[in-house]
Amino acid sequence: MTSPLDALGARAAVLDHAFADTDLRELFDLPEGIVYLAGNSLGALPRSVAPAVEHAVRTQWGRDLVGAWNTHGWWHAPRRVGDRIAPLVGAAPGQVMVGNSTTVNLFQVFRGAATLRPGRGVVVTDPGSFPTDLYALEGAAADAGWRVVLASPPEVAAALAEHADDVALLALSHVDYRTGELWDLPGLTAAAHDVGALAAWDLCHSVGAVPVGLDAHGVDLAVGCTYKYLNGGPGSPAFTYVAARHLPRFEPAIRGWHGHASPFAMSPEHELAPDVERLRVGTPPLVSMLALEAALGVFDGVPPELVRERSLSLTGFLVDCLDALVPEVTLVTPRDPARRGSQVSVRHADAFGIVRALGNRGVVGDYRAPGIVRLGVAAPYVSHSDVLATATALRQVVDAGEHLGGAEPRVGVVT
Amino acid sequence: MTSPLDALGARAAVLDHAFADTDLRELFDLPEGIVYLAGNSLGALPRSVAPAVEHAVRTQWGRDLVGAWNTHGWWHAPRRVGDRIAPLVGAAPGQVMVGNSTTVNLFQVFRGAATLRPGRGVVVTDPGSFPTDLYALEGAAADAGWRVVLASPPEVAAALAEHADDVALLALSHVDYRTGELWDLPGLTAAAHDVGALAAWDLCHSVGAVPVGLDAHGVDLAVGCTYKYLNGGPGSPAFTYVAARHLPRFEPAIRGWHGHASPFAMSPEHELAPDVERLRVGTPPLVSMLALEAALGVFDGVPPELVRERSLSLTGFLVDCLDALVPEVTLVTPRDPARRGSQVSVRHADAFGIVRALGNRGVVGDYRAPGIVRLGVAAPYVSHSDVLATATALRQVVDAGEHLGGAEPRVGVVT
Repeated sequence: MTSPLDALGARAAVLDHAFADTDLRELFDLPEGIVYLAGNSLGALPRSVAPAVEHAVRTQWGRDLVGAWNTHGWWHAPRRVGDRIAPLVGAAPGQVMVGNSTTVNLFQVFRGAATLRPGRGVVVTDPGSFPTDLYALEGAAADAGWRVVLASPPEVAAALAEHADDVALLALSHVDYRTGELWDLPGLTAAAHDVGALAAWDLCHSVGAVPVGLDAHGVDLAVGCTYKYLNGGPGSPAFTYVAARHLPRFEPAIRGWHGHASPFAMSPEHELAPDVERLRVGTPPLVSMLALEAALGVFDGVPPELVRERSLSLTGFLVDCLDALVPEVTLVTPRDPARRGSQVSVRHADAFGIVRALGNRGVVGDYRAPGIVRLGVAAPYVSHSDVLATATALRQVVDAGEHLGGAEPRVGVVT
Repeated sequence: MTSPLDALGARAAVLDHAFADTDLRELFDLPEGIVYLAGNSLGALPRSVAPAVEHAVRTQWGRDLVGAWNTHGWWHAPRRVGDRIAPLVGAAPGQVMVGNSTTVNLFQVFRGAATLRPGRGVVVTDPGSFPTDLYALEGAAADAGWRVVLASPPEVAAALAEHADDVALLALSHVDYRTGELWDLPGLTAAAHDVGALAAWDLCHSVGAVPVGLDAHGVDLAVGCTYKYLNGGPGSPAFTYVAARHLPRFEPAIRGWHGHASPFAMSPEHELAPDVERLRVGTPPLVSMLALEAALGVFDGVPPELVRERSLSLTGFLVDCLDALVPEVTLVTPRDPARRGSQVSVRHADAFGIVRALGNRGVVGDYRAPGIVRLGVAAPYVSHSDVLATATALRQVVDAGEHLGGAEPRVGVVT
């Protein structure tokens, strides 16, 4: 009789064979023996990055010096990299700009939304949003004179109905950072539009893992980070999407010289660039930007739908493995694939101890207070065998009590 | 009889010998045969940077992955690098934070100033400020309900007298980016304080070149970039200084999770960190940040006063060489060393052509519309011989008419 573990092992082999075409681990410089399930926090290092960064530093900067702004296309990098991200979020060219941190871009998008929907006094957002989204919104709402109405996605329809014509903006995350739940971007965007509001989406936990379809679904505004599933490196610059129809009237609260219609005229008056260039602010961090540009090569010829197919197979298999091998953890992520991002979160009283003990066994996940183990599945470099190894390691951790004792960390890790 | 050129050559040799201790060119990876006078736009590459960046990418990120936030001190980098910059601007530790672009930091500082001086309705600034300073101020002033009063530094006293108790903030640049004029930071700060206003200084063109003395002169707020005289690399993150006495009440308009008192509690309410950590916003670009950190090693054991002494000798000698060899250009930078930053700007009808022709001769300066050739003197890697070679090349350019013809660039270079 076949043991459950043997059966899962056989299934892992079959699935990895079936998905061999999208196994891109060879494109990454991942250490041997590591199962890396924290790509939803910091993506792994693509092999293309280190040589690109070395070239940027030694040749572009070191040898060609200030002239590199022209000769190596530094000046146009924010838009060029934005246009490279655009197909991953379903955007036509000329709507995505790279620069700043996610938080700064959220603030810009929220303030810009206020100028696009003047005379309205309410913004609706999910109280379960990643904290920085709430903080940036709170600041922008104070400036815009908005009242912040909290409603989790299932409650959004009621909140929109209640405030109807007064809603300027619905601001949500595409994927919940703790539970990994994928929200209904098309339906919620349409609901916002039904009351004349704009929809702004935080794509930090979906870009590079889930098809987004910004243009197809009529999304107005979006922001995303690039160091999770896009593998841009720690703190690589974030991006902003403003739908082409809004760009001519989109007014950033922070205006820098890079977003000027004629930046080198050095005019004392700001005149917004007519196009997506107006989303630029100050000089972007080029070394981090060029690392990101090199990292995006991973997705060449791999459309988001293929990544999604592999991701769903992996997360579905992870759920099955956990069900079979570690029934004492509680699944937090929806079982319905249509409602699942690219991570599997489980709850356990000793969640932090589990993350630490898994790490000691070479399985890197991460912890989110309170009590959640996050297992991020970056489809390009995670395999079904990795997934089974994770559940097996978790079984061993629990059996050996390796997760017990020890304090929570003084400093956590970055989402 | 000695020719003027021979006399200048002899003087260059004597001066370079006298200043041999502060000739740090060996710490830089500058191409042979280049005289690099655009360090006021993009500093040259310190030799320490490429290995540090390679280590950050391959080992810290690639091998140690998300754990590097803790094991390699990424989380604390913004403050650690800030404390490394602090002595270069005369600040005690715990007042300087690194992150964002200069423009974003200017916006934050201006908005924060408004909360520190509530009930006042005027901000005074120099119309000759670098444009992004004016743009950021215009946005912040609109939010704060401030009227912007324009006054160049010589007119500031009158403007302050006229608006006296209504002035919330005096916002100036330490060095004029076109002319290289060094303004009287101590005197103008005191004048702002005399009417109960705050003083905010843009140090982009002074940090790393001129002693600043923020604490000694009671400056309230400051912002600076790190890719000019600090050699942090293209777009390396900027810094913000808030005097310790203001920190407990300084309220950033954009609040991110990195500036939270307990960032990993993931609280929906923002609670500002009690100290300089409140100046953090979102996840900073670590690769660019760590390049900057490595670059700052250039200044180890070289206090700003020593850099200044060498810089004044170099710029003074450059003025003398231009006077002697190229009298047809008009000096824009003050002759008085006390009023000179670390660049020499000259006016000429064919300024752009001059910059281009000098570049063809291996002398890299830059151009600022209208009609200004900027020759930035980064003391650590520029010598008196370089300075003489520059004036000599300029003489040859003009004699041969190499500067004539050709259009202005479509895209300029970044200040």
